[in-house]
Amino acid sequence: MTSKSTKTVLPPRGMRDILPQEMVLRQHLLQVIGRVYQGYGYLPIDTPAMERLEILMGKGGNENEKLLFKVLKRGEKLDEAIHGDTVSDASSAGELADMGLRFDLTVPLARYVAANRDKLPAVFRAQHMAPVWRADRPQKGRFREFMQCDIDVIGGESNDYEVEILTATEEALRELDIRDYVLRISDKRLLPLLFGDAGADEAQTAAITTAVDKLDKVGIDAVKAEIDGAILPAAARELAHLLLANAGGLAMTDFAATFGDKVTRREEWDAIVVNLGYIVDNIKALNPNSAVRFDPLLIRGMDYYTGPVFEVGVKGYNFSVVGGGRYDGLIGRFSNNEIPAVGCSIGFDRIMTILQDRENATQLGRKRVRVVIDKADALQQQQLARKVRALGIAVDVDLTGRKFDRRLKAAEGEGFAHIITGYDSATDEVTVRDLRERKSVTVPLAEIAAIL
Amino acid sequence: MTSKSTKTVLPPRGMRDILPQEMVLRQHLLQVIGRVYQGYGYLPIDTPAMERLEILMGKGGNENEKLLFKVLKRGEKLDEAIHGDTVSDASSAGELADMGLRFDLTVPLARYVAANRDKLPAVFRAQHMAPVWRADRPQKGRFREFMQCDIDVIGGESNDYEVEILTATEEALRELDIRDYVLRISDKRLLPLLFGDAGADEAQTAAITTAVDKLDKVGIDAVKAEIDGAILPAAARELAHLLLANAGGLAMTDFAATFGDKVTRREEWDAIVVNLGYIVDNIKALNPNSAVRFDPLLIRGMDYYTGPVFEVGVKGYNFSVVGGGRYDGLIGRFSNNEIPAVGCSIGFDRIMTILQDRENATQLGRKRVRVVIDKADALQQQQLARKVRALGIAVDVDLTGRKFDRRLKAAEGEGFAHIITGYDSATDEVTVRDLRERKSVTVPLAEIAAIL
Repeated sequence: MTSKSTKTVLPPRGMRDILPQEMVLRQHLLQVIGRVYQGYGYLPIDTPAMERLEILMGKGGNENEKLLFKVLKRGEKLDEAIHGDTVSDASSAGELADMGLRFDLTVPLARYVAANRDKLPAVFRAQHMAPVWRADRPQKGRFREFMQCDIDVIGGESNDYEVEILTATEEALRELDIRDYVLRISDKRLLPLLFGDAGADEAQTAAITTAVDKLDKVGIDAVKAEIDGAILPAAARELAHLLLANAGGLAMTDFAATFGDKVTRREEWDAIVVNLGYIVDNIKALNPNSAVRFDPLLIRGMDYYTGPVFEVGVKGYNFSVVGGGRYDGLIGRFSNNEIPAVGCSIGFDRIMTILQDRENATQLGRKRVRVVIDKADALQQQQLARKVRALGIAVDVDLTGRKFDRRLKAAEGEGFAHIITGYDSATDEVTVRDLRERKSVTVPLAEIAAIL
Repeated sequence: MTSKSTKTVLPPRGMRDILPQEMVLRQHLLQVIGRVYQGYGYLPIDTPAMERLEILMGKGGNENEKLLFKVLKRGEKLDEAIHGDTVSDASSAGELADMGLRFDLTVPLARYVAANRDKLPAVFRAQHMAPVWRADRPQKGRFREFMQCDIDVIGGESNDYEVEILTATEEALRELDIRDYVLRISDKRLLPLLFGDAGADEAQTAAITTAVDKLDKVGIDAVKAEIDGAILPAAARELAHLLLANAGGLAMTDFAATFGDKVTRREEWDAIVVNLGYIVDNIKALNPNSAVRFDPLLIRGMDYYTGPVFEVGVKGYNFSVVGGGRYDGLIGRFSNNEIPAVGCSIGFDRIMTILQDRENATQLGRKRVRVVIDKADALQQQQLARKVRALGIAVDVDLTGRKFDRRLKAAEGEGFAHIITGYDSATDEVTVRDLRERKSVTVPLAEIAAIL
């Protein structure tokens, strides 16, 4: 162990200390999301931060599992693992560990549903907002510990749940005062139907959709170039170009008309298109201000989606803030049966970025009030603070006992907007100093809220 | 790995899945605590779940460190650790791990203060509510993952901060409708002064205070027996009996008079007594309903307290729900200087136990409302739910498309108190069925809140 003086006091690599100003905003965000979805019957749940390794390590092992933080066995079991012959390198490190920190909220949800089946309703609306951990290479804006907010309907087959979850999501965005957004929706099955008929095999279809998925990031020319560079049947390539030619400007009926005739599995195609139309129409019927819009070029990268998929983007930001869709295969993973599911994940840190950009973050400073009275003892100042709090206003008191000037400077330094510098118990009036305008005003205590 | 069918889907040993009903109550508790202390200027912070091992492993190693969940190194560093000769058994397992999960919030707070010193005010009021992990033997009511709620003032020397933190704590308890509580306060330095003068050495004083600390759990006779069984100077034993004879019934002035004369370091003694009197008097001046009461027999087990200590107990429960005190040595641990601090820890799970006992938990069921209308399509029912939500009432919709009878049974099974079974758009009236009373009533939509 290094000596005290050289020991680093920084958080672990890729992880963060959250300062009060940011934490207040984070809690606000969590509360708004929680309240809105709870209004629709989505109830909060929680699972342990750790899961048994056998739960986290699926068959085959996907990308996320490589990023597992594993928890060392303890006591005798660790002794056994160390003395056993099986641990030869990092790849067999599973022997040394028995648990891992969750890398997403989907695997824990699947286990939760299996473990608590008899205590949950047949259609279970859940919200789970909790940190996850990934031993990723840290980058700007990518951390090894971060919040995920997942909202899911488990056990609901009807597309009415898509309508509901998207309506609630738009309400949450509105409550957060995020208005310049677009909600795009498509169906995971559309493009494979289209390109499959045009002679593309599964890998080729994936190559096309992967290219299209980058549209927002790299622009249409780069996507076209990538498609031209891929080995594809001519018909599939032609179709991809036709699709790109209509990027961003194709209503669902036009899309169905333009591309429907090229599909041989027409019944399947029509059912998907009708479903999407139903979802979009009902969302608009419930909320005429909805920003929902069909976009056949919307690709959600994850393999596990099985039907409608959706994404919310915000003007001026090249990332999505909400993504989700139907994923009927995943939740039954530990339950020995298929369980339909639809859900979305809210990009907590991305929404934080937007809120902080808009300077909401500084509202904390604008609202904070402190009592700093010259020649008053601690009790008198605390008694006044108590009266102010009774009016619903958060207020603290400088109890250091320092001279007035030093307390005044401290309040300025800490970003307080207002300090209360006097109270007249005879008239019940307070004197409030605006630290930015550098002006003082005396008002009846009961009217203090109006000047803060 | 075991096969899918035999794989356990339970959470890891000693950890819990939180069901929605409990989670709603947990969030309520967190929000009330957060809001009350924020009203006093205590701002929320957060730190990573993990810390570097060198931060968590102090000199000597205390009890909590033995309970560390350690996080395995990754990649090359893990390979090196495995191939090195230093790992021979569990005691050298530190070589295999580089991080651990925090076992309390105090060590992270000390690191946080050192790391963010220049961004924090000189007197820093913080609240930190977050899970901690301990590889303890699980028992009834003792888990390996549990919430801690710590409220601290860092950098404040004045005892006015004790007054403030206790006043805020009593407000939080009142907001949680916990009224049958007692707030006991003493000073960690009193009994050592007393027993030191009576010839007891440090270990003997500790033996006495450890025995006295069990008073609530084992009763006065058992405490007396333990003191009689210990090897103590006669004067110290006599003093301990005198103290116990006054258990529960000694006002501070009586205590000071009865025991003060026995103390040779009188000046030190008097200063402590005056301080305690100041704290108690000011708390009562701020809140005449305060339940604060001096109790010289209050012992807080932790070594790190350096001055006033306090504890809140609730009638009918043999555990404390809040404990805290001044601990001037601890926070400076990583900062290379002494930093005064006073704080309290709220027993989250214990308060949850009390709230659940009082059946607040079931209020969730009582308040929940669902739309279950016969012969109405999903959209019509969703539109009605939207109108109800606009009145501030959380409501969900059965969107399964099942027959009315089955939807009715599901709502009953899920513990809903009320379902909305009809809506007349001409009169704007809703029909609401009370599922417990098995009665229906039709009222104007705008008045629905009154009958729920």
